[in-house]
Amino acid sequence: MASTDAPKDLPKMQYRFLGRSGLQVSAISLGGWLTYGGQVEDDKTFACMKAAYDAGINFFDCAEGYAGGESEKSMGAAIAKYGWSRNDLVISTKIYWGGAFGSNPVNNTGLSRKHIIEGVNQSLERLGLDYVDLIYAHRPDRNTPMEETVRAFNHVINQGKALYWGTSEWSASEIATAWRHADRLGLIGPLMEQPGYSMLARDKVDGEFNHLYEEFGTGLTIFSPLKTGILTGKYNDGIPADSRYSRDDKDPFILRMTKEFGEGKWEAQLETVRKLKPVADKLGVTQAQLAYAWVLSNKNVSSAIMGASKPEQVWEAVRSLEMVELLTPEVLEEIEGILGNKPSVAPRRY
Amino acid sequence: MASTDAPKDLPKMQYRFLGRSGLQVSAISLGGWLTYGGQVEDDKTFACMKAAYDAGINFFDCAEGYAGGESEKSMGAAIAKYGWSRNDLVISTKIYWGGAFGSNPVNNTGLSRKHIIEGVNQSLERLGLDYVDLIYAHRPDRNTPMEETVRAFNHVINQGKALYWGTSEWSASEIATAWRHADRLGLIGPLMEQPGYSMLARDKVDGEFNHLYEEFGTGLTIFSPLKTGILTGKYNDGIPADSRYSRDDKDPFILRMTKEFGEGKWEAQLETVRKLKPVADKLGVTQAQLAYAWVLSNKNVSSAIMGASKPEQVWEAVRSLEMVELLTPEVLEEIEGILGNKPSVAPRRY
Amino acid sequence: MASTDAPKDLPKMQYRFLGRSGLQVSAISLGGWLTYGGQVEDDKTFACMKAAYDAGINFFDCAEGYAGGESEKSMGAAIAKYGWSRNDLVISTKIYWGGAFGSNPVNNTGLSRKHIIEGVNQSLERLGLDYVDLIYAHRPDRNTPMEETVRAFNHVINQGKALYWGTSEWSASEIATAWRHADRLGLIGPLMEQPGYSMLARDKVDGEFNHLYEEFGTGLTIFSPLKTGILTGKYNDGIPADSRYSRDDKDPFILRMTKEFGEGKWEAQLETVRKLKPVADKLGVTQAQLAYAWVLSNKNVSSAIMGASKPEQVWEAVRSLEMVELLTPEVLEEIEGILGNKPSVAPRRY
Amino acid sequence: MASTDAPKDLPKMQYRFLGRSGLQVSAISLGGWLTYGGQVEDDKTFACMKAAYDAGINFFDCAEGYAGGESEKSMGAAIAKYGWSRNDLVISTKIYWGGAFGSNPVNNTGLSRKHIIEGVNQSLERLGLDYVDLIYAHRPDRNTPMEETVRAFNHVINQGKALYWGTSEWSASEIATAWRHADRLGLIGPLMEQPGYSMLARDKVDGEFNHLYEEFGTGLTIFSPLKTGILTGKYNDGIPADSRYSRDDKDPFILRMTKEFGEGKWEAQLETVRKLKPVADKLGVTQAQLAYAWVLSNKNVSSAIMGASKPEQVWEAVRSLEMVELLTPEVLEEIEGILGNKPSVAPRRY
Repeated sequence: MASTDAPKDLPKMQYRFLGRSGLQVSAISLGGWLTYGGQVEDDKTFACMKAAYDAGINFFDCAEGYAGGESEKSMGAAIAKYGWSRNDLVISTKIYWGGAFGSNPVNNTGLSRKHIIEGVNQSLERLGLDYVDLIYAHRPDRNTPMEETVRAFNHVINQGKALYWGTSEWSASEIATAWRHADRLGLIGPLMEQPGYSMLARDKVDGEFNHLYEEFGTGLTIFSPLKTGILTGKYNDGIPADSRYSRDDKDPFILRMTKEFGEGKWEAQLETVRKLKPVADKLGVTQAQLAYAWVLSNKNVSSAIMGASKPEQVWEAVRSLEMVELLTPEVLEEIEGILGNKPSVAPRRY
Repeated sequence: MASTDAPKDLPKMQYRFLGRSGLQVSAISLGGWLTYGGQVEDDKTFACMKAAYDAGINFFDCAEGYAGGESEKSMGAAIAKYGWSRNDLVISTKIYWGGAFGSNPVNNTGLSRKHIIEGVNQSLERLGLDYVDLIYAHRPDRNTPMEETVRAFNHVINQGKALYWGTSEWSASEIATAWRHADRLGLIGPLMEQPGYSMLARDKVDGEFNHLYEEFGTGLTIFSPLKTGILTGKYNDGIPADSRYSRDDKDPFILRMTKEFGEGKWEAQLETVRKLKPVADKLGVTQAQLAYAWVLSNKNVSSAIMGASKPEQVWEAVRSLEMVELLTPEVLEEIEGILGNKPSVAPRRY
Repeated sequence: MASTDAPKDLPKMQYRFLGRSGLQVSAISLGGWLTYGGQVEDDKTFACMKAAYDAGINFFDCAEGYAGGESEKSMGAAIAKYGWSRNDLVISTKIYWGGAFGSNPVNNTGLSRKHIIEGVNQSLERLGLDYVDLIYAHRPDRNTPMEETVRAFNHVINQGKALYWGTSEWSASEIATAWRHADRLGLIGPLMEQPGYSMLARDKVDGEFNHLYEEFGTGLTIFSPLKTGILTGKYNDGIPADSRYSRDDKDPFILRMTKEFGEGKWEAQLETVRKLKPVADKLGVTQAQLAYAWVLSNKNVSSAIMGASKPEQVWEAVRSLEMVELLTPEVLEEIEGILGNKPSVAPRRY
Repeated sequence: MASTDAPKDLPKMQYRFLGRSGLQVSAISLGGWLTYGGQVEDDKTFACMKAAYDAGINFFDCAEGYAGGESEKSMGAAIAKYGWSRNDLVISTKIYWGGAFGSNPVNNTGLSRKHIIEGVNQSLERLGLDYVDLIYAHRPDRNTPMEETVRAFNHVINQGKALYWGTSEWSASEIATAWRHADRLGLIGPLMEQPGYSMLARDKVDGEFNHLYEEFGTGLTIFSPLKTGILTGKYNDGIPADSRYSRDDKDPFILRMTKEFGEGKWEAQLETVRKLKPVADKLGVTQAQLAYAWVLSNKNVSSAIMGASKPEQVWEAVRSLEMVELLTPEVLEEIEGILGNKPSVAPRRY
């Protein structure tokens, strides 16, 4: 397993408090969706998790819905295999997309008390753990009363099956509403939110959520810091050759770009990425590292979750920790000039 | 003063409960920003208010910031002049823009306890009233803790100086946060929100606010249903002649369109308005009435506030009440097809 | 009254939010204890208040106990005389030392419900105002249950006779205990504390209180930034000649120094002040201005209250606003080296 | 095992209620930090625990951080060995210093929910118990929100893993803040505090904490009543011979004194101890017993925790119970005169 030994010159991991809590998570963390049944087989998962752990990553992120539960099984197998101390790990899973766990979807998805309780129990079984550190609501469920959802997550915490709860891809007003019910009932509110966040997609984190940080102490564990790879700059030199001339609706590249950015909008996004190259070059970093360092320069981000199918990707991300300090106010301003997408909502003062 | 008598064939006024309250407001109401010191002199204000009152309008909307307080004075003078029963009126004012009432702006604007209390006292003095029915926070104040604002509006209510409080142009998460503090402290939460709303500007009312209606019982008193007149169709035949060729940055029409819709976006909006004309024609109504009827067809709208500088405008708006029922599901669907701007956020089910 | 016109080159006043509130107070403010019956006659008080007001000072601090109530009368007379807008003023008074207002001290001092209510009513009468902006508990009262005191200040606020309440010279645990009762009962907690604070006396503000700022949002209105004048450097060249050789227990200078710093400790304090002179010289400011700028460089300080017996003293203090930015991290570190009295208690992170 | 039998003439143990609770603890108790891996091997620990138990001591104090967990194991082994009824024991442990229990310190120290829950589970495993009677926060954690800590200790109590919770070496304001959150949330507040307390170190217990006893019913389980042995008087005749002439910075005696009392301050402390000898002689007790009796004469002290490496030390401490009544008001006043360190903060009256 020599290839998963962390290079000697990797920077020391940085730990951040998860929002307004006493829990510390590694600034870079590993997502669990690339796994058996998903896109990567177990051996690669094991290698990536070991590389991550050895690099000081302590937060491993999963969900019941990833690969129909296989992702949790694979992550649990890695934890068992390496014999890491439970204390040293911050393990998460998410509840919402449990359709794979029954023949009738009606009570296997969403945030009803029934599905939260059943879902957490089954996730723990797949993970082989007594508890997760973090449990997320994987989406808002507008058909379940908020009080029911807040109560159910508190129930799970009171049973010792999770230590903290949070949300993923909720709106600011839904998070505020969850806190309303939590406070009204003396219950624990959602500690963290997991949104997508990158230089190309920042409306929520830098805009809509601006009131949340001071008001609720919301911590962010962001995903997609490379915007599914676009920010690595691999499309800087043009659309891949095989799709350049076809440009029909079925072209996978076009389809993906359109899904990410919307009809007729993705070309401008690629142009923005191209303009970031000189900035990365000047700093002497890769565009991927610039993208990681940029999200980490936001103090509201507790951890940036990366996907990885081989240890080298883990190491590249970890190296970006050294680059955060290169992002001086002047460099950040230059980047803002290129992005031109800074939301205007003022944060709370207090 | 015969000209302010309501025409005999005006439809009967419709009253709607203001959100989840027992207070009933006329579906069409009169805003107080067109007044002495603003754009219209007192006599016209009196005529419009009498026309409105005679047509069954009971809700008259004002703000401390309109015309530096002159708007409240004018409205108060009208109420005194006509001797209407206080019981029959729903009078509002709004606190935030009180910069005119001191030499130092620092504590004369915003939503601190100091300005809310001092502002309400001074508004009541200008209005010549002991209390307003509705007191609004005219904007969110992100420098004042929400708890302070919620407590101050409750204080004003407890002193009998206002009966209900609400917000204007707040975000959904700010409204939810206000409710959090209100519920936590056993206080009264914000009952109503006053947003701009029209066929051309509906992101908040039909999108971001979607969770609020069931969750908090938020009622809407919307303004700008004609989008400052654009929806009357008066620009359907092109930009006014005198500005057609100038098209420079100083052209008032261009400036106004740009302010409303953003750089490079207003032409498409005018095109949408043009496409609505056949719909209005088919129903046999004016485009203004179509615009009024459309906002009133939204059951979350408790009242549509109009501006008026002459009684005829009041009557035209009131007549639109008869047209709401013309907006069948089929017609509404046709309109959606033309607008193409329906937000996608699902409402709460419960 | 030409002499009270602010010099043309006075820096613009700076306003700061008072702790976690929406109220803004001038960073420099004027204390009301130097007045008729105290040390200065009314005319001088009027001149100082006008000089302060004209320089942008909006916060005027008083207490029932200053000069047996004469201080409040004098301040009230100045407000009436100059006709300033009530909105533009932040007026405070303090309740505790009301012994002058009855023949029997038992219920005229302390923080019982009876004395708070009676004391506030009588202070308002002396001030000629309907309400003060800030009401302080002038000392902790360990004979009155905290709940009674918290309830009484809320009562006064609910009656509209004060807008915010706070404490003066309370311990951190007493402030925390007041918040306990306020929260438990859904009442308003103490917003601000008024401690002595200067380069020579900082144990509470920079040590014991460190937990309060984040936990409760406590704002500070500090007094004695010059440590009764010692920090002006006027004793740098030695103890005044007439006391140099006497050094007996009755020498007023020795008595005062001993009272401020304790037996056998004041000589070292004077030595520290001497060492600060080169720092002030290097920055090109007076030692008094260095002392003012230093307290203002602490972001937890909302306002520094000065005493003044002539307008020139007001202006010297206001000029120190320009000097805060001279206190770079390097200069502040140099000062710390000279002071050698930085408390070690860590602040809260969150 | 005859040597661990309590002498026949030992005074009857005295039990005191632990603060404002119904739990009774022996006035003298045994600390668990002198143990295997620490300073004393298991056999001695067993002998001391048996001597203590036989003398009526029911409270045995431990911590996760003592000797990296070995202290808890040793105490647990003693309990198992002697087969004492669980009902008859009051067992404590403390959470904070759990760095030994993982490879990564970040989530193994402090008072996050994660470490409190994991720490308690692991302490119970080492102790071989289902629950402890008392769980302490071994230090304040200024990086974890107080609400999180209060909730986590309540969780542990709700799971039946501890019966009461308290603090050790917290400031008065931190204890008050914990109560604020506990009361606000309807949770159990911290019952007891464990500070160092002796005739030479009393600022907190007799000063800063003075408000706590009546306000929160805080009980004290004090440690270091002999101030690490100095109060036994063993240094009365001068610094031990072998260090008398060295007096360099490395001298262990000097180092220890300096650590306890501060640079240049320890000589005065030793002088104070010397002056206490005549008092002890007059009462016919050892200086150690005078020191024990003095802390026990404070009614706010529920239990004085001693360390012991042999049964004789246990018995000497227990005998001091008889001496408390010798400390008449006159004797206590004489001692105050010698100590000269009585804090001036007035206690609450009510």
